[in-house]
Amino acid sequence: MCAKNILWIMCDQLRFDYLSCAGHPYLQTPNIDALANRGVRFSRAYVQSPICGPSRMSFYTGRYVRSHGSTWNGVPLRVGEPTLGDHLSEIGVRTALIGKTHMRADTEGMARLGIDPESLIGVQVAQCGFEPYERDDGLHPDGPYAPDPAYDDYLRDRGFGGSNPWEQWANSAQGEDGDILSGWLLAHADKPARVPEAHSETAYMTNRAMAFIREAKADGRPWCAHLSYIKPHWPYIVPAPYHDMYGANQVVPVVRSGREKENPHPLYASYMEERFSRVFARPGVRERVIPAYMGLIRQIDDHVGRLAAFLEEEGLTDSTMIVFTSDHGDYLGDHWLGEKELFHEVSVKIPLIVVDPSRDADATRGTVTDALVEAIDLAPTFLDAFGGKAKPHVLEGRSLLPLLRGSPDWTRRAVISEYDYSQRRARVDHDVPVADCRMTMVFDGRWKLVHVEGMRPMLYDLESDPEEFVDLGDDPACEAERARLLGLMFAWARNPANRITMSEEQIAAAYDTELDANILIGYWDEAEVDAARKARGDAE
Amino acid sequence: MCAKNILWIMCDQLRFDYLSCAGHPYLQTPNIDALANRGVRFSRAYVQSPICGPSRMSFYTGRYVRSHGSTWNGVPLRVGEPTLGDHLSEIGVRTALIGKTHMRADTEGMARLGIDPESLIGVQVAQCGFEPYERDDGLHPDGPYAPDPAYDDYLRDRGFGGSNPWEQWANSAQGEDGDILSGWLLAHADKPARVPEAHSETAYMTNRAMAFIREAKADGRPWCAHLSYIKPHWPYIVPAPYHDMYGANQVVPVVRSGREKENPHPLYASYMEERFSRVFARPGVRERVIPAYMGLIRQIDDHVGRLAAFLEEEGLTDSTMIVFTSDHGDYLGDHWLGEKELFHEVSVKIPLIVVDPSRDADATRGTVTDALVEAIDLAPTFLDAFGGKAKPHVLEGRSLLPLLRGSPDWTRRAVISEYDYSQRRARVDHDVPVADCRMTMVFDGRWKLVHVEGMRPMLYDLESDPEEFVDLGDDPACEAERARLLGLMFAWARNPANRITMSEEQIAAAYDTELDANILIGYWDEAEVDAARKARGDAE
Repeated sequence: MCAKNILWIMCDQLRFDYLSCAGHPYLQTPNIDALANRGVRFSRAYVQSPICGPSRMSFYTGRYVRSHGSTWNGVPLRVGEPTLGDHLSEIGVRTALIGKTHMRADTEGMARLGIDPESLIGVQVAQCGFEPYERDDGLHPDGPYAPDPAYDDYLRDRGFGGSNPWEQWANSAQGEDGDILSGWLLAHADKPARVPEAHSETAYMTNRAMAFIREAKADGRPWCAHLSYIKPHWPYIVPAPYHDMYGANQVVPVVRSGREKENPHPLYASYMEERFSRVFARPGVRERVIPAYMGLIRQIDDHVGRLAAFLEEEGLTDSTMIVFTSDHGDYLGDHWLGEKELFHEVSVKIPLIVVDPSRDADATRGTVTDALVEAIDLAPTFLDAFGGKAKPHVLEGRSLLPLLRGSPDWTRRAVISEYDYSQRRARVDHDVPVADCRMTMVFDGRWKLVHVEGMRPMLYDLESDPEEFVDLGDDPACEAERARLLGLMFAWARNPANRITMSEEQIAAAYDTELDANILIGYWDEAEVDAARKARGDAE
Repeated sequence: MCAKNILWIMCDQLRFDYLSCAGHPYLQTPNIDALANRGVRFSRAYVQSPICGPSRMSFYTGRYVRSHGSTWNGVPLRVGEPTLGDHLSEIGVRTALIGKTHMRADTEGMARLGIDPESLIGVQVAQCGFEPYERDDGLHPDGPYAPDPAYDDYLRDRGFGGSNPWEQWANSAQGEDGDILSGWLLAHADKPARVPEAHSETAYMTNRAMAFIREAKADGRPWCAHLSYIKPHWPYIVPAPYHDMYGANQVVPVVRSGREKENPHPLYASYMEERFSRVFARPGVRERVIPAYMGLIRQIDDHVGRLAAFLEEEGLTDSTMIVFTSDHGDYLGDHWLGEKELFHEVSVKIPLIVVDPSRDADATRGTVTDALVEAIDLAPTFLDAFGGKAKPHVLEGRSLLPLLRGSPDWTRRAVISEYDYSQRRARVDHDVPVADCRMTMVFDGRWKLVHVEGMRPMLYDLESDPEEFVDLGDDPACEAERARLLGLMFAWARNPANRITMSEEQIAAAYDTELDANILIGYWDEAEVDAARKARGDAE
């Protein structure tokens, strides 16, 4: 039974535990919870890199960072790297982007191959395989970063003008004297964004997704719509009424320990010194920022509700798989850190809910699975859901359909996540060569090892230390655990899906065909060749 | 001091020890020896896979097989994989192919990217970055393999006609009754090929190289000419007078031991059972085949002499680097094996001679170095020789120029070579999944470990056992050595050059530029931003 369509909703920087279905004590997300009730919630889903760009490139290619090579934000995805869009278009599925990808095109590689960036193929290559129905990476500060999205025109058309409506309306507040107060600044997180909610980024992108779905329905082809919200990613600012829906008394306590600052791993120490970490350690900052973060999530939840109602109205509920996830989490001051980038659960673990409309999935509806799953599992899941043939020689994840449909034997020994810290102060602090700025997490469900090239590893036992306060990376008593986890990492490292141009079936079919091609290796004389041909039953 | 030109001569299946300068007691190769006298001979040069296709793709990309992904003959090189030709063309060097590459184009990938195979770029992509001055993979049996090369027309024009002149003239002998005797069959290795020597493949390709060099000289751009002979690769047949220049009494004794058949590694056992191995174990086969193999080498040597004289006549000797090498060796019955594909020295080690015309290389002329070098070192060497900037984020080898120019501190801890046995009987014999058919050699100059996915490793100590008769792969006494070598392999496996779209300099330049882009992460208020801008010395 194949899905007709997939609506794949991705948030940016949404922690796994900021949903009411995941146990948040104050934040209500009834519409997302409803998805969980209709599908399966994955309580142990991990991204392949705890930062936007590489994480997304893993989602979009179904491959580990070591394979797709886009190791940090802004590192172009090499031209020719096969994408979800490529795999789905082969089987007639329209794969569209509505929102953010964080893709940077490999313009040098495209030029080398003579690919015109303006051509149909060039545009899709530049958008990592998606049809860019609405491309908007969600950050549009003044300057060269990502100027003038369609959303800016949309705002201007509605009277929210200026040189940078994205910044000045959607991501700024207004002072009592009429001053524009930048939403980048955490001090303003408690104020409402200037833009009316109905014209905010989240509302706009939801509308665009509905427009796409309406068009795609008319078109008739199966579709995969990637609705990719920039929020609750910073700037932490949200329009009314969400800006004051939660208060400081609904901010959960910070998760950190003085013990983490005693003899921290050198890289961890550097991350604690980053500005985005230090600011979250100051009194009052979490209390100012987190209510806005919660409001942004609550706003998304309301739009998820709109989407569900819309699918129902359009008669698409029974034919549409819905996936809800995020590209990584947010420390929000936990572990003395801000942002994401390291491998604590709040950073590397993501929310993941899959609603599979198939009857075969009825038995698992409303359940939670603690199977170890990875972001790269989604691409093969989608291929599988559309009835495509598995491509294990390219896609390094595994279809989740068996889990959704109650197969008990889906197991994974460990999840892997990678991170390149070459563009952070940790490299400079410790004078590490760019090529060596590699960290790799191996997590088996209990033990989490972070291998650090050229330094000692980090190690956490989530059974005895679920809060991840105690780094056992240099504890002599844990030598055996470290060796075991390094063994899992070695097995992973030496078995990349590198032979992407030939499938296992093609290899098997090519076996023992030399005689057919009149390539005669190892034959002494004519009689031996004749005998061999006869033995194979070849015609004379 | 930059080289103006490079003549890069590659033989196919030439063992490292079948040259008089490498100590062969009977075979004379005075012209190749003369190159060694003018340059540096590398006595420990290793290919990155002991079989044509993947080995060559490593030569042509400067990358390990795990990185370029063309794991066996016929596995297409993924479109967009950067090649030597790409790197050299960036700095204005014409990089031309004259002969064999064993490249199979990624036609699916090209179609996905809309690259017309007939376009200028399409042709170069399909020929792994070379300008295909003369493309001839050297095997043209009847059938679909590689039909009708230009060489066939050349033969037909000279009266050597028929449906397949390559096979019927260049690679067949003639019986006493006028019958055509196939050169594929080892029984006929002692007979002369039907083609006159002057029109044989080796002579023809040498002529084509000289034609290219003459044209390139007129053109004026620096050039890298890859003259890639198919010989002494099978069919083992050579025209007069080379067919009887050596006799059975000049065949060196076979290197094998009964001990190798006691408890062999399962994969080794399977290779011993391949037809091409069994035939070489039969009495008289080596004595029939090896004189032809030696004749083919002697013939190449004569043409190397022609080339050297030609360069001198053209006034190019002082501006042309000459490189002489092979893509792998040939067991010729040693170790109970034929062909290549496993990791004994006679298979994985290659001859390598580099003549550097620079004055800076005068001190090393005529010397032999036992530095551990790899085939992937050539691409960065060529880039360096032409004055190009190093690209360690793409090219996984290292320039040999420091070694040629007397720098003492060039060291490498271990060489790596990979092999995918999925298209051999070893896979079928042992029912191994295609994706797991991976072997990886790690050789540190003394200990050679072959890691085999899912099976025990092989291990040889070349100091106590230079003939590689004793596999210590399961010897408990060698546990520490195995662990040490696996550690080297792990370090290699976890550090691929995967971020090929951004150099280390570009990464360093991108560091700490967020404030410049007005991306304000972690600032509390306006005062903090102002202070930060002031601290950086930014203008107000």
